[in-house]
Amino acid sequence: MARYRCLGFLTDYGLEDGFVAVCHGVVGRIAPDARIVDISHLVPAYDVRRGATVLARAAPYLEPAVFLAVVDPGVGGDRRAVAVGTESSVLVGPDNGLLLPATSALGGARRAVELDRAELFRQPVSATFHGRDVFAPVAAHLLAGADLADVGSAIDPASLVALDEPLVRAHPTGVDAEVVDVDRYGNLQLAATWPALGVDVGELVTLGVEGDEHTVEVGRQFTSVGPGQLVVYADADGRVAIAVNGGSAADRLDLVRGGTVRLSRPRDRTPSP
Amino acid sequence: MARYRCLGFLTDYGLEDGFVAVCHGVVGRIAPDARIVDISHLVPAYDVRRGATVLARAAPYLEPAVFLAVVDPGVGGDRRAVAVGTESSVLVGPDNGLLLPATSALGGARRAVELDRAELFRQPVSATFHGRDVFAPVAAHLLAGADLADVGSAIDPASLVALDEPLVRAHPTGVDAEVVDVDRYGNLQLAATWPALGVDVGELVTLGVEGDEHTVEVGRQFTSVGPGQLVVYADADGRVAIAVNGGSAADRLDLVRGGTVRLSRPRDRTPSP
Amino acid sequence: MARYRCLGFLTDYGLEDGFVAVCHGVVGRIAPDARIVDISHLVPAYDVRRGATVLARAAPYLEPAVFLAVVDPGVGGDRRAVAVGTESSVLVGPDNGLLLPATSALGGARRAVELDRAELFRQPVSATFHGRDVFAPVAAHLLAGADLADVGSAIDPASLVALDEPLVRAHPTGVDAEVVDVDRYGNLQLAATWPALGVDVGELVTLGVEGDEHTVEVGRQFTSVGPGQLVVYADADGRVAIAVNGGSAADRLDLVRGGTVRLSRPRDRTPSP
Repeated sequence: MARYRCLGFLTDYGLEDGFVAVCHGVVGRIAPDARIVDISHLVPAYDVRRGATVLARAAPYLEPAVFLAVVDPGVGGDRRAVAVGTESSVLVGPDNGLLLPATSALGGARRAVELDRAELFRQPVSATFHGRDVFAPVAAHLLAGADLADVGSAIDPASLVALDEPLVRAHPTGVDAEVVDVDRYGNLQLAATWPALGVDVGELVTLGVEGDEHTVEVGRQFTSVGPGQLVVYADADGRVAIAVNGGSAADRLDLVRGGTVRLSRPRDRTPSP
Repeated sequence: MARYRCLGFLTDYGLEDGFVAVCHGVVGRIAPDARIVDISHLVPAYDVRRGATVLARAAPYLEPAVFLAVVDPGVGGDRRAVAVGTESSVLVGPDNGLLLPATSALGGARRAVELDRAELFRQPVSATFHGRDVFAPVAAHLLAGADLADVGSAIDPASLVALDEPLVRAHPTGVDAEVVDVDRYGNLQLAATWPALGVDVGELVTLGVEGDEHTVEVGRQFTSVGPGQLVVYADADGRVAIAVNGGSAADRLDLVRGGTVRLSRPRDRTPSP
Repeated sequence: MARYRCLGFLTDYGLEDGFVAVCHGVVGRIAPDARIVDISHLVPAYDVRRGATVLARAAPYLEPAVFLAVVDPGVGGDRRAVAVGTESSVLVGPDNGLLLPATSALGGARRAVELDRAELFRQPVSATFHGRDVFAPVAAHLLAGADLADVGSAIDPASLVALDEPLVRAHPTGVDAEVVDVDRYGNLQLAATWPALGVDVGELVTLGVEGDEHTVEVGRQFTSVGPGQLVVYADADGRVAIAVNGGSAADRLDLVRGGTVRLSRPRDRTPSP
């Protein structure tokens, strides 16, 4: 009997070429009653880190699911194809770091397998479209009732490839943190979680970006400050974020993902020596 | 028992960041049998008026449904969260004008409630993602069988915030009308409905745009005129529209949403004094 | 009883304007249990050829289905509205060449009808939105159990309008071939199928583009060559394709769809006279 009904699906395939529908078709032939939630297919081409961020954001909100994630610049090379089981869910994709942040968000890996059951794949397996030929069929078999042990050979979860951790570093009056995500609105999400900042709503912080300093209010949300004003706040993922009320913080600060900012508490709150 | 099976879903979340999937997940946990129709998630960020236009266009074609619509520049401020019942359907979203054109298209508001049942929300409620924490859970409870009275306190439908009406003004030989929508093809939809223009297919009209005048044929559709020619026609929503056969009227006339055009009947048909 | 449960849906409507959702709504009212797979709605406006390519790529991977495809620059003109039956599936759309490559990919046309049963259409039929008023209702009736003969009058499949065949021409040492598709990654798919090239993995070929010549390795996939290197390979559709490992071949070679390349085998492998 099927343990999972929901498939969470993320790729960098885009929505123009029909590649996503091909995978929907492959899944539908094996697991016709699956309910597919398309998490995103607009991950920038080959951008494993961005894919990992979006997958980790969405995964905890879905019901227990099979997650099929394919951002796979090494397709056809020697990277492993894997499935990772958490307490509630299972994630299927390439072993290139894409799956691990979501795995953590789902409570961590309990088991992992390397996908080596060729009889489950669509044959012949193409050299370039493992989403269609390897990952989608395996995800569909999991939806149709297969156990993790049925789709591959056990491997040590500790052997899974991980991405570099983004920078978060305390300094005497605050924190330096990497911009880990820029969303559609131009809001900047930092690697730092909210408690790390150590300031309260209503205080001011100094925001340093490449030598420039901005005094910014700490608010509960965008509308805590006037239109066009910068605000530092705890975002819906519980991370420190920077926004402009009614505008784009990314444009205002000329920051992209991977950039670093320095946030500093007011001097009079700096612990004295 | 559930009254609704269909969820019509519209936001300005975009398709890149996973926010839409997060809401699909929240809905799916409460109402797993819902059939979700994604109306659009590419409403320009914070563009309530555009969101209202697209929602009103699509809503009448869906079966009776719960409509979940979130374009919410005032999230976390003091705008109300509401649900509005029509004869057939119910609409859930911020009280900022987004819901009202669709409400009218569905026959008008019968009842309305302010969403004040915190026990229905996802806790803790974030300051910035009420789609996930407030609106999606409430919509899901309506899909799962809750009545409008179960999800909030009654308010006067007349108290709901409305957007400004777009300009439509008769002049002696025709009509001035605002461009209310520009679609993917560059077709310009005007606020005027077809009867207001008072001309027949095959006649010529004068189209005035910022001082320039164009003589344009009134056709049944784009292909009523030659390739590259302008045409005025009644579009599929019953409004006066302007297109270029095989091209973009928006580009040709350098018009965007919010602009105004003057349409004038031929002089010899002008009623004499 | 319904023969089909799956609707494969492709248009050039875009995802911004709500037109796709309108059609989902029309289908859902007639065939509420249909499982809709959106193949693509980002076909460039009016680009019948691109729509045909994407539809043909995806169709064979779906379960037996009704395919609803609308890229229809001649809407409202005298092009026919048709449905085409293959051994497994049925395709509904305008008779402008859009459906035929997918029909071939599904094994060829067995039967065809012209859609002339006005009682199945949404009334009044608009002049410009036959997706909503003609094609979606007919597709939905097929999903709900209607037979091809129930939705129109038989026509000769040989009378269906076909697109021009893309260029594939052998020359003494290889093949000239048109670029039939450029995907999101910038990979160039050629009209030539793999056997036509007559080279093996590991060999070098000469790639001629508008007078420039490039010596390119034939690989199994992108990662067969170094980062940033060009590679010629058999893609997942079985066609000759050109990629750059980690980059865009379209950008590198300044090629778009419709361009032509010359591929030539190494001289020492040219058959002697």
